[in-house]
Amino acid sequence: MKAEIITVGTELLIGNVIDSNSVYLSRRLTELGIDVRFHTSVRDNREDLYHAIQIALERCDYLFLAGGLGPTDDDLTKEVLAEVLGKELLLSDETWELIKKRLEFFSKKITPNNKKQALYIDGSYIIPNPNGSAPGEYIEMDHCKVFLLPGPPKEFEPMADGILDTYFKDIYEEFFIESLNLCFIGESQCEEQIRLLKLEKDYLEINTFAKTHEVEIKIIANASAENKEMVKHDFEEAISVLKEHFQDYIYAIGQTTIPKTLVSILREKGKTICFAESVTCGLLPNLIGSVPGASDCLKESFVVYSNESKVNLLKVNPEEIGEYSVVSQKVASSMSKGAYELSKADFVISTTGEAGPTTSSNESPGTVCYSIRCGGEEVANEKVHFLGNREEVRLRAAKYILGKTIFLLKEE
Amino acid sequence: MKAEIITVGTELLIGNVIDSNSVYLSRRLTELGIDVRFHTSVRDNREDLYHAIQIALERCDYLFLAGGLGPTDDDLTKEVLAEVLGKELLLSDETWELIKKRLEFFSKKITPNNKKQALYIDGSYIIPNPNGSAPGEYIEMDHCKVFLLPGPPKEFEPMADGILDTYFKDIYEEFFIESLNLCFIGESQCEEQIRLLKLEKDYLEINTFAKTHEVEIKIIANASAENKEMVKHDFEEAISVLKEHFQDYIYAIGQTTIPKTLVSILREKGKTICFAESVTCGLLPNLIGSVPGASDCLKESFVVYSNESKVNLLKVNPEEIGEYSVVSQKVASSMSKGAYELSKADFVISTTGEAGPTTSSNESPGTVCYSIRCGGEEVANEKVHFLGNREEVRLRAAKYILGKTIFLLKEE
Repeated sequence: MKAEIITVGTELLIGNVIDSNSVYLSRRLTELGIDVRFHTSVRDNREDLYHAIQIALERCDYLFLAGGLGPTDDDLTKEVLAEVLGKELLLSDETWELIKKRLEFFSKKITPNNKKQALYIDGSYIIPNPNGSAPGEYIEMDHCKVFLLPGPPKEFEPMADGILDTYFKDIYEEFFIESLNLCFIGESQCEEQIRLLKLEKDYLEINTFAKTHEVEIKIIANASAENKEMVKHDFEEAISVLKEHFQDYIYAIGQTTIPKTLVSILREKGKTICFAESVTCGLLPNLIGSVPGASDCLKESFVVYSNESKVNLLKVNPEEIGEYSVVSQKVASSMSKGAYELSKADFVISTTGEAGPTTSSNESPGTVCYSIRCGGEEVANEKVHFLGNREEVRLRAAKYILGKTIFLLKEE
Repeated sequence: MKAEIITVGTELLIGNVIDSNSVYLSRRLTELGIDVRFHTSVRDNREDLYHAIQIALERCDYLFLAGGLGPTDDDLTKEVLAEVLGKELLLSDETWELIKKRLEFFSKKITPNNKKQALYIDGSYIIPNPNGSAPGEYIEMDHCKVFLLPGPPKEFEPMADGILDTYFKDIYEEFFIESLNLCFIGESQCEEQIRLLKLEKDYLEINTFAKTHEVEIKIIANASAENKEMVKHDFEEAISVLKEHFQDYIYAIGQTTIPKTLVSILREKGKTICFAESVTCGLLPNLIGSVPGASDCLKESFVVYSNESKVNLLKVNPEEIGEYSVVSQKVASSMSKGAYELSKADFVISTTGEAGPTTSSNESPGTVCYSIRCGGEEVANEKVHFLGNREEVRLRAAKYILGKTIFLLKEE
């Protein structure tokens, strides 16, 4: 089955916003085993939109149109689609009542323009929009099924999920999916190794997704009523082979992230964590703090960017900095020791390094030393070189170190 | 002039990566006054790619193709384009020598496949790629000019810049552009106010770009040799009107960000900064630390997430927390006082609040109190409500507070 996505809005074509709706929907459709063949983005322009819809209708089984459902004159998607399909627009009294109620609730003036959003294409099904005033529509034709959705991602995403759960339910019910989350490995290396394992079958797909300095392996299997048992078996077998093969890299199973996994294990074990950061400069507590419930495990944290602060706050010996240089495993160790004395946290992590582009030590940009203490005892101390610009080095280092901490906690 | 961008790669269609090349190039082309009419993304599939190129060639003046120039069998862009144009592929000895040298330098094996990247379309100009092995190409035809570029953004972006500076130089020379950077205001509000100022003309365009919780106003004017003086005058006049109108919101002129602007002013004035964070949890030093040279102004910083840490490290009176609640302007003030005593930094900023989704005080999610001290004296203390989920609240608060600091520093 072939799907195609058209996103509508001048803001996309002037480079003002990223087309996150196409990314979101493509990923979800791929999970369902549907081939997304084309993404097209088009301005709020009648002629261009007409042309794009016409082309898409000729070549796909499912067409998703997003954006251009607002109340202003610029919003043309519904009108143009009706024109291409040779159908009329009718007023939905029910939708109009809902829009009026919504506007009243938000104390907004009702203008004649708002009525535009209550129009629907003759013969279509209206898809409710719980987060905005523009409802979606579903138009079933012999050769192609068309879904019309609003553009704002906060409205688009839940409605797209609803459509996949409703209209694609038949596929969904005989469908298996699992995610393995990896760190310390690049996507291309991961992909190559998976290819060599030869696990894929007609009904079993394994995709890798590069997330920022981590990799997600997604195992997807699509079964019919007849082969369900075999598919289930092969799906589970593939997961077990992958788990074994990538055991040094998999930090978690399912939908999660490195910070979420770490916070969850720390909370489960009732452990606290504290950072003493130079090169990562607030990034580690920031990642942890982005997870709800982080306050259970993170009590305090220190950014000791200057040598002076390392010496005064963490009691690092200035002679040690002179002898070993500030970017050294020795100094990293003293930093975590000092932070342990201050915080008495169960896990203490220190970082010192060169993010670049310039350096103030003898080390090249990308060099990071870190130390991890558990109950005051040093359990990890390493010097690692990370590739990339300043931002990438800092984020790579942060993910790497938090990943290491997850593995240490698991062993504990 | 109409431009169109086709990005090639299955990874785009399965939602693995965001099409950042289209965003980057669209923004640059818009700055040059060129209308980008369509973005299309297509799989590494011969038939789909052929179809997409064929359609695009019929409707645009400039076609940019990105991706699919690698050495593997999947990489089809050059081949398919040659087929659509009815041209032959020839071997460039010069490119082949460069590729071999590059592979030797990186100690990589030379395979027959690599020779594919040395092929070029008969009659095209080769565009060097300083950051990768796949060169670009420029094919001039009567009705359309085609640019072929590699997909990795690190190779694509500098090559796109080079093309715009070379092939579009004539436009560029009679071209005016300026950016105004605003905080404390939303994009739609900003856009509406600009529309009411009625500054736009045929040759003068004003676009707003929503960046994460800030807004960029871009003023672009396009002149011919004849009307250059008038255009220049109107361009400068528009900037001066906008500067006056948005004076309470503009934190900087030109290509910059809030953290870059703040670090630059701090360094210029020889001032230091320190944070005492609860709700922002490392985000403020992280934003500052992302700017090269941050170590000149940031010596140390504290995350005091727990009440215990606020009391022990920053000497906040526990009775004050009991009486006023931890999310209060009073506690924010004591936090910045304590951090000033510890760090003696010229500027000290504290934050305490509720990021959500749950709360531990009486305040609703999104409530943030902050205090700013200059030379130990409190110069700002406010309670603000920010909209959005946990991440948005934290980032909105951080940008708002750093923006406030920029305005305070400017007044100093």
